[in-house]
Amino acid sequence: MDTILIVGYVASALTTIAFVPQVIRAWKLRETRDLSLAMLVLLGLGVLLWTFYGFWTGSMPIIAANLITFLLVFVLFGLKIRYK
Amino acid sequence: MDTILIVGYVASALTTIAFVPQVIRAWKLRETRDLSLAMLVLLGLGVLLWTFYGFWTGSMPIIAANLITFLLVFVLFGLKIRYK
Repeated sequence: MDTILIVGYVASALTTIAFVPQVIRAWKLRETRDLSLAMLVLLGLGVLLWTFYGFWTGSMPIIAANLITFLLVFVLFGLKIRYK
Repeated sequence: MDTILIVGYVASALTTIAFVPQVIRAWKLRETRDLSLAMLVLLGLGVLLWTFYGFWTGSMPIIAANLITFLLVFVLFGLKIRYK
């Protein structure tokens, strides 16, 4: 596997797992006031479209990364609604 | 331009502009306690790597989207440090 592809995979993994500590923080603090609802909605729609794009182009890494990100953003959205 | 490409561009635009309302919120509230620093760091590194990936593969849309996202996340990082 060449360097460029590895960089792509690492980049993809980082932007996906980035939302894990945010979910943990919102869960622990039971506070989401400083999180922007608009950000969560736009991000959720964006990664959902990326997932469709991945399906259409048959790109498994794009599907996997964006589906996981979508689920994490969806959980954050739920926490945002619950702990205003 | 075919539908798949349009979906890719819309997805890219959404995940980039998503951070604008978050920057506005942090700026207005002068509060970033609920934002995860780990998320900002991982996200910043991730989109920076995506930018390099874009340069290497010569993909202008990847460069543009991720460079803008990087700047927005960088501003959020600064606000997080300033308004703990």
